[in-house]
Amino acid sequence: MAAIWKTQALKAQSILRESIPKQWIVPVDKLPPPTQLNVTDFPRKSGMLSERELAITGMSATALVAAMGEGKLSAEEVVVAFLKQAVIGHQLLNFATEFMAEKAISRAKELDQYFEKTGKLIGPLHGVPISVKEHIGIKGLTLNGGYATWVDDIAMEDALLLQCLAKAGAVFHVRTNQPQSLMEHLCCSNNLTGTTLNPFNRTLTPGGSSGGEGASMGFKCAPLGIGTDIGGSIRCPAAFCGAYGFRPTARRNPSSGLKLPEPGHESILGVIGPLASQSVEDLDLFQRAALAQEPWDIETSLVPAPWRRVSPTKDMTVAIMWDDGCVRPYPPVARALLYAQEKLLAAGIKVVDWEPYKHAHGWEIISSLYFPDAASSQRALIAETGEPILPLTEWAFQYSRSVPLTVAENWELNFQRDVYRDEYHALMKSRGVDFILCPAYVGAAAVLGESHYWNYTAIWNILDQPAVVFPSGLIVDPTLDSVRDSEYQPRSAIDEREWKKYTPERYAGAPIGLQLVGKHFRDEETLAAAKLVSAVVLGRTEGAKL
Amino acid sequence: MAAIWKTQALKAQSILRESIPKQWIVPVDKLPPPTQLNVTDFPRKSGMLSERELAITGMSATALVAAMGEGKLSAEEVVVAFLKQAVIGHQLLNFATEFMAEKAISRAKELDQYFEKTGKLIGPLHGVPISVKEHIGIKGLTLNGGYATWVDDIAMEDALLLQCLAKAGAVFHVRTNQPQSLMEHLCCSNNLTGTTLNPFNRTLTPGGSSGGEGASMGFKCAPLGIGTDIGGSIRCPAAFCGAYGFRPTARRNPSSGLKLPEPGHESILGVIGPLASQSVEDLDLFQRAALAQEPWDIETSLVPAPWRRVSPTKDMTVAIMWDDGCVRPYPPVARALLYAQEKLLAAGIKVVDWEPYKHAHGWEIISSLYFPDAASSQRALIAETGEPILPLTEWAFQYSRSVPLTVAENWELNFQRDVYRDEYHALMKSRGVDFILCPAYVGAAAVLGESHYWNYTAIWNILDQPAVVFPSGLIVDPTLDSVRDSEYQPRSAIDEREWKKYTPERYAGAPIGLQLVGKHFRDEETLAAAKLVSAVVLGRTEGAKL
Repeated sequence: MAAIWKTQALKAQSILRESIPKQWIVPVDKLPPPTQLNVTDFPRKSGMLSERELAITGMSATALVAAMGEGKLSAEEVVVAFLKQAVIGHQLLNFATEFMAEKAISRAKELDQYFEKTGKLIGPLHGVPISVKEHIGIKGLTLNGGYATWVDDIAMEDALLLQCLAKAGAVFHVRTNQPQSLMEHLCCSNNLTGTTLNPFNRTLTPGGSSGGEGASMGFKCAPLGIGTDIGGSIRCPAAFCGAYGFRPTARRNPSSGLKLPEPGHESILGVIGPLASQSVEDLDLFQRAALAQEPWDIETSLVPAPWRRVSPTKDMTVAIMWDDGCVRPYPPVARALLYAQEKLLAAGIKVVDWEPYKHAHGWEIISSLYFPDAASSQRALIAETGEPILPLTEWAFQYSRSVPLTVAENWELNFQRDVYRDEYHALMKSRGVDFILCPAYVGAAAVLGESHYWNYTAIWNILDQPAVVFPSGLIVDPTLDSVRDSEYQPRSAIDEREWKKYTPERYAGAPIGLQLVGKHFRDEETLAAAKLVSAVVLGRTEGAKL
Repeated sequence: MAAIWKTQALKAQSILRESIPKQWIVPVDKLPPPTQLNVTDFPRKSGMLSERELAITGMSATALVAAMGEGKLSAEEVVVAFLKQAVIGHQLLNFATEFMAEKAISRAKELDQYFEKTGKLIGPLHGVPISVKEHIGIKGLTLNGGYATWVDDIAMEDALLLQCLAKAGAVFHVRTNQPQSLMEHLCCSNNLTGTTLNPFNRTLTPGGSSGGEGASMGFKCAPLGIGTDIGGSIRCPAAFCGAYGFRPTARRNPSSGLKLPEPGHESILGVIGPLASQSVEDLDLFQRAALAQEPWDIETSLVPAPWRRVSPTKDMTVAIMWDDGCVRPYPPVARALLYAQEKLLAAGIKVVDWEPYKHAHGWEIISSLYFPDAASSQRALIAETGEPILPLTEWAFQYSRSVPLTVAENWELNFQRDVYRDEYHALMKSRGVDFILCPAYVGAAAVLGESHYWNYTAIWNILDQPAVVFPSGLIVDPTLDSVRDSEYQPRSAIDEREWKKYTPERYAGAPIGLQLVGKHFRDEETLAAAKLVSAVVLGRTEGAKL
């Protein structure tokens, strides 16, 4: 059997290798040594990108579109700049599964011709390069979802979300890596194209399951990316890689055309959503452009809710959840929350504390619902080629109950889920809280292979609340983030397990992300608030202007 | 064991008997003989209601509210008139499970005081009596859902929809009967309070599962009623009883507080919705009043979609589905469709034919999903008291597969459901069809115990499309509705089974209802179109005015 998965892996590696634009590859002897942890400065040092190109890869999607609309940039030079950045990023981080350079450049040229002819942009994402997590189908290309057995599967058409974004002018230039078992694995390692690294510290994971997207954003291989999230899979990569990520309420963004082991499993709905390298504003741009195409008129499971324009306002109450009551966040995260609190108070925003409500209960429900069939469908897919089960895949599987749920047991959990959701929503209302500011993870990031505790993100999946991750602007600093005696008093075996991993040196240089959570279906309000909160915390002028 | 269910049944009967307002009971010797089929004229003949009261029970909710707003009617006299009608109706049809006369009158008096003091109505349903299917919880009252084992269960609070309607001014005066096994049983018989009859022909069923509501509407015991529908349970009773009924898209109306055997079963979502005795306009009034309370801010599974005001327009295409390709409708239904076609064409509305799309496939999916646990949860409830399983309950159960679905099999059916839904929606768009006019049932009604074929309604449940039932104004007429040789050529065993039941004499006098179906989530447009279509078909001036 072993031969089968290895043959499949070689195919996936060949697809990747053949797709890399050779002209932009940096010779191996010019690359930073493997011992260099932070590689984010290498694009400049490599000499592969011009100053103009370096400026482009530092721009937000919003700024790029504006510049293209003024004729200051061409779509072609934009996509070429990001392709160069992506090729270098891939050499350092192994984040891609397939480049689509020729098609992307050809599409950019069409857009340039359109602009030349009409003087207009084709849509709100005109010429914006977007990286795409591999299991989101692209017509004619492999669609393996991280499983060796699926390497020969070819997508019959583009995923519906990609169709919507393409109509708005987006250009897809690179497909990105994901872990074996996909959505429930907050790391990024599989048996096909290997392990993706964190650009800020290559001993760390970029997070998962949209880990290739995390690396893509952190290394600025695209201003926008697309991930999927059923327990934190957009938000952890965004947080671990100093980027922005948005988990919308379920049934807003179209998910037709995704490769998943369990179509029809709807007790916990995964969502598809954006990551951004530069700003919350870009997340909003993405959502607005996608939903303007009215995908609900094709994918009828969606809620027919047009994307509303909502302006940020300081007239809100932000509650800070310092701790979920189960696992205490590491010192860097606590420091970032304290820092954010000070900034928000100084900006005149009402800030209160949030006492968590039954997060262990929420975890009990969602962890039982991730694999209601005791992961037998996933195990069967893995067995088909005999590929090894990776440790974090097995870790995720062990959260499921040991035997498959009966449908009646599944219903009981669905019911408990709905009750919990209603209770949490009522609690936010009765406490007068509009948004919850909280950690995105126990720490700033996880060491490769160590992302074990997901419930700072997964809790918002079971509650189906929209959540935005943004960088605090701070990084892990061993001089500031050592453990004081008073902090380490484990409350449980899980708490102890997590704290035993911690010394600040292991996470040095990792950006510290934070998470802002809104009420169910208040997606627009949540992004508007996150614009303001992130600007205030980062000390950007956008915040001051308001 | 037998003793247990009998004791429970006696309790339910006692609750009912004690609740009947004795002063309005017609002496048994004054009642029409059991052999009299159509009893709709008896309120007038009984002498129990004044002319003014008879006028009130002939008014729509919309007209009643207007009259109360002008001070021409009091809420108290309105509810008393409908209570009188309901007591008589119950004597003839056995449609109630519990009267709430005192509370209703007391509430009506409060409303009258409010109006006297302020000169204003309290809300859009000020003083409107509404009958309520029993399994919709009312605080402090029994909540048995048609099961003997639940007779001692007491609701802790009013169902959320009732709370919304009460805020709008509604008055709940009578609770209505339902069959054993509830939602999947298009008849109305249980072991507690027995069998409900059809007011137009007492050898016929009023339909089910909201059969008590069908009788309530047909006999005009209330201008509005509340039913639930997972396969036709609002629409069949409305059609069988010459009334109006609306199945909204799922997740629009709040269902918290319903008693159901399988909370958390969400592969096929039942919906709660209105029936009306007088007009489509009243269905719209009900929806508008209920959703104005924003129930989605409490029940978070709902879609946060306010009820939109949509005006009827003749600029639409109505496609007539003459036959679902599985079971040919009986002659009266075919005649009513032809009649409607002529009226619509004469009114200048574009009418085309609708070729059904895989209705047998749709039935295969939904019938497998009704009881994914092979009805074991229902059978267990029934076994708890040893109550007999009624024939149509067993009939419904046998649609389920013989062994419980695994969760993986359940997912596969969910996935097929979504694909079918998307395909059907795309087909309506590609054919340029806005609404489908079709039968609500094989015949105008079913003989007691004979409602076996549900797919003229259930198909719109699996497709989750909004559907309105309204009377054609025609009734079954043996002189017009005999079977011609050319009509009876059974296509299948099921078709043969249904046709073997038919002779027009068995259904004489039954009103013939029709069903208008809109696109997923186009609830408001569907009701607006049904206003116009029903007015045109009934030859009412509302149609002519447009």
